[in-house]
Amino acid sequence: MAIRVQDILNQLMEPVGRLEVTVDTLKSGDPSMEVKGIATTFMATHDVIQKAVEKGVNLLITHEGTFYHHHDQIGHLVDDPVYQAKQKLIEDSGIAIFRFHDYWHRYRPDGIMIGLVQSLEWAPFVTENRPAATLLTIPSITVKELALYVKNKLGISFVRVAGDGSMICTRIGLLAGYRGGGGMAIPLFQEEVDVIIAGEGPEWETPEYVRDAVHQGRKKAFIALGHAESEEPGMKYLAEMVAALFPSLPVHFISEDQVFEVM
Amino acid sequence: MAIRVQDILNQLMEPVGRLEVTVDTLKSGDPSMEVKGIATTFMATHDVIQKAVEKGVNLLITHEGTFYHHHDQIGHLVDDPVYQAKQKLIEDSGIAIFRFHDYWHRYRPDGIMIGLVQSLEWAPFVTENRPAATLLTIPSITVKELALYVKNKLGISFVRVAGDGSMICTRIGLLAGYRGGGGMAIPLFQEEVDVIIAGEGPEWETPEYVRDAVHQGRKKAFIALGHAESEEPGMKYLAEMVAALFPSLPVHFISEDQVFEVM
Repeated sequence: MAIRVQDILNQLMEPVGRLEVTVDTLKSGDPSMEVKGIATTFMATHDVIQKAVEKGVNLLITHEGTFYHHHDQIGHLVDDPVYQAKQKLIEDSGIAIFRFHDYWHRYRPDGIMIGLVQSLEWAPFVTENRPAATLLTIPSITVKELALYVKNKLGISFVRVAGDGSMICTRIGLLAGYRGGGGMAIPLFQEEVDVIIAGEGPEWETPEYVRDAVHQGRKKAFIALGHAESEEPGMKYLAEMVAALFPSLPVHFISEDQVFEVM
Repeated sequence: MAIRVQDILNQLMEPVGRLEVTVDTLKSGDPSMEVKGIATTFMATHDVIQKAVEKGVNLLITHEGTFYHHHDQIGHLVDDPVYQAKQKLIEDSGIAIFRFHDYWHRYRPDGIMIGLVQSLEWAPFVTENRPAATLLTIPSITVKELALYVKNKLGISFVRVAGDGSMICTRIGLLAGYRGGGGMAIPLFQEEVDVIIAGEGPEWETPEYVRDAVHQGRKKAFIALGHAESEEPGMKYLAEMVAALFPSLPVHFISEDQVFEVM
């Protein structure tokens, strides 16, 4: 029996129930189209879409928006040649693009976090899964060693670190995506967390708190992985889950290079 | 005649007129206190406040908030030991802290931008000053050379670059602080800007636009300086301006190290 785009979406959203307000909509394509192949990715870049099409994929499941804006505002892009070329690629290919962001974060535990913890090989060290953060107690290690470990496990070329690299740490607060801001991260430090590892957050919030804490003689640090770097593993994990749910369909995970290079 | 805190504030705000909604308020101290010394800084860190007090400064003018939040929300901090120790330092010292953010950005040209352009020694290359961005045409240079030039002039150890480092560029869009987001930066690319240089912005907006543009064969790049790195020069320039306005008072600029280290 043919599996339709909407069948996949329904099954993915089912564990969460229906969200009234969400960015998770079908951004392109026909919900009644028969699915021939599926790919997951952090973001549907031009390159990712082309690679998906080349693999015979006609349903691309992306975590972030296609046009560089969380709420799909494209008013400033309608005459933009980059937007137009990407939009033409999407229309010509007929690919369905579904954003799976809010629902995936609402899985318990958060699906993105499961993937991140798996990639870091830290599942045995999890002490608590909260909706927006996971707490872990790892074997003692310096912040610098921790940064190198994380880079190695995630396959990334750099992280940014605030605090003292020689500090010994064991209690970790892990936050994926844009959850590194002060409102979410700073309260974790009050619970005896030594190091916050997050994707992205405003630079003068948590990092500057850490600077002040260290200046006061406290042992705190912050590691910024990068937004995509923190969430790609969760979309890779999603590909494994989708493959198990729909064993008759080819399912791929398409990764991207780090968007930034340090110079 | 004694110069009071409020006298300084009035003179600084005067060129802009009164803003109805602003974060620029006196965060601590008595507006009628006689000013003995002034310092400017990007952010009133614990260390900066101590250094100011050691210099005999009793009016500290900061660009960003003291407690890691743009709108001074401190609800999650009231029991926080880092907050409490910093707050005690402020109260014990009696230092007046004035945030000069919105007004300084409303100067024409933007005061922060004047300082940034000066530090980059790019004043002769400015083609247009807009409220939120300055456009420049510089002698042709590769993106990588540009990154190294900017690091050298600003005295910073790293920048993050999206795009092709070997690309030749000449048209620059320069945005200070948290103005690197897609809504502000991407439209500049539509005006034949080759490279956007900004402080900070969400990672999957402008950088991902650049990735798509480069993949489509277009010559675009993005350099993230860091938020503080992009705005410190404007607070250094403010110290020069304040010194000229109040020649009887000692005026200092207090800098900080980059909050992040790359590992």
